[in-house]
Amino acid sequence: MSHVLKEIIKNLSVDCAIFGFEKSFLEILLIKRKRNPEKGRWALPGGFIKKEELVDQAAKRVLEETTGITNLYLEDVAFFDAPERFPLWRVFTFGYFALVSPENYPVHIGIDTTDVKWFKLNELPDLPFDHKYIIDTALEKLRNRVRYRPIGFELLPAKFTLPQLQHLYESILDKKLDKRNFRKKLMAMNLLQKLEEKETNNIKRAAYLYRFDKKNYNKLKKQGLIFEL
Amino acid sequence: MSHVLKEIIKNLSVDCAIFGFEKSFLEILLIKRKRNPEKGRWALPGGFIKKEELVDQAAKRVLEETTGITNLYLEDVAFFDAPERFPLWRVFTFGYFALVSPENYPVHIGIDTTDVKWFKLNELPDLPFDHKYIIDTALEKLRNRVRYRPIGFELLPAKFTLPQLQHLYESILDKKLDKRNFRKKLMAMNLLQKLEEKETNNIKRAAYLYRFDKKNYNKLKKQGLIFEL
Repeated sequence: MSHVLKEIIKNLSVDCAIFGFEKSFLEILLIKRKRNPEKGRWALPGGFIKKEELVDQAAKRVLEETTGITNLYLEDVAFFDAPERFPLWRVFTFGYFALVSPENYPVHIGIDTTDVKWFKLNELPDLPFDHKYIIDTALEKLRNRVRYRPIGFELLPAKFTLPQLQHLYESILDKKLDKRNFRKKLMAMNLLQKLEEKETNNIKRAAYLYRFDKKNYNKLKKQGLIFEL
Repeated sequence: MSHVLKEIIKNLSVDCAIFGFEKSFLEILLIKRKRNPEKGRWALPGGFIKKEELVDQAAKRVLEETTGITNLYLEDVAFFDAPERFPLWRVFTFGYFALVSPENYPVHIGIDTTDVKWFKLNELPDLPFDHKYIIDTALEKLRNRVRYRPIGFELLPAKFTLPQLQHLYESILDKKLDKRNFRKKLMAMNLLQKLEEKETNNIKRAAYLYRFDKKNYNKLKKQGLIFEL
């Protein structure tokens, strides 16, 4: 790595909102800041962009350096440009997000952090800067996204029940969905294959297991759909 | 305007891709550069962001300063961050776009420009920097947009013919559409009101005039639609 590559552009940073779905809860990954400003507080994994870097590269590098997460496809959310968002000087930040199954992405404490932890979205600590706003904007993008693209393939086990899928949608949309209506709409999408098996950990009212029809899933993901829930 | 506000952030700029639809052609607004680098060449209206500005504000200001266009709602396209895109130092640029009826937006030569002109998209001069790429990216966004939102209301006269509307879609999508199929899909959207009048400037094969059903138009624009053409 050349000396030039190491120089940062101090007006430009990236912040990553990594959402996790585990046991029916939507979570977000936070790091504890090692340096000022806001030393010791929980915040989004973030950092400055280097002089020769692309913004996407910066997001991947910063996420890896702070949390240990590698090989994650990050999508850009928006840029955040409120003049007062960083207290010391003007910093524009590029927000990125991803939705993952936490068990597939083990984390460890990286540089400039003293801790890394998943937090339930409804148990968030008070966040510095505009990080709460970045999370809300990413969530909005995620909520809008589920109208146009099916989700779940990367987040649910290979075989899952309809209640599990409904929980996923409910936790992203943060509202209760009508069971009958949800199923009717889902079925109309030809997205699911019903299996002969039932779940085994719920003896009393075991639900049938389903899996995604990978071909139709990818087709719908590419084509788009309008899925009003 | 304070002295601070006048200072620029020299790593950050905005560039505006303003598309115009006039007489069935898609056009783009270019300015002739007054200063180096690339002095004397046609390019997108653009400029650096000021220290206290929001990026949206910068885009509006730069567009007004260079072309005289005011009161235009600009949408962000993407950011462009190729390290070599600006020859003198690293400049990240935020692309913005709008689609307008040129007759509603008179232009005049502004600061840092020696000329301002609409160019047909298929008669573009060779553009400096990554401006051709910014235009292509904006066009892609526009093409994707017409799948999810109806367009035309702001671009066509209040009463228009179906061939006019089809030309609009064809010029954005840059492909011929099947007339019957196009009309069938349009009609299914409940977007148009057929009028009793016919056009008057085409005596031989006068076509019926239509207007948009404003209520359904706004509803579809808000809800989204999948309109595969």
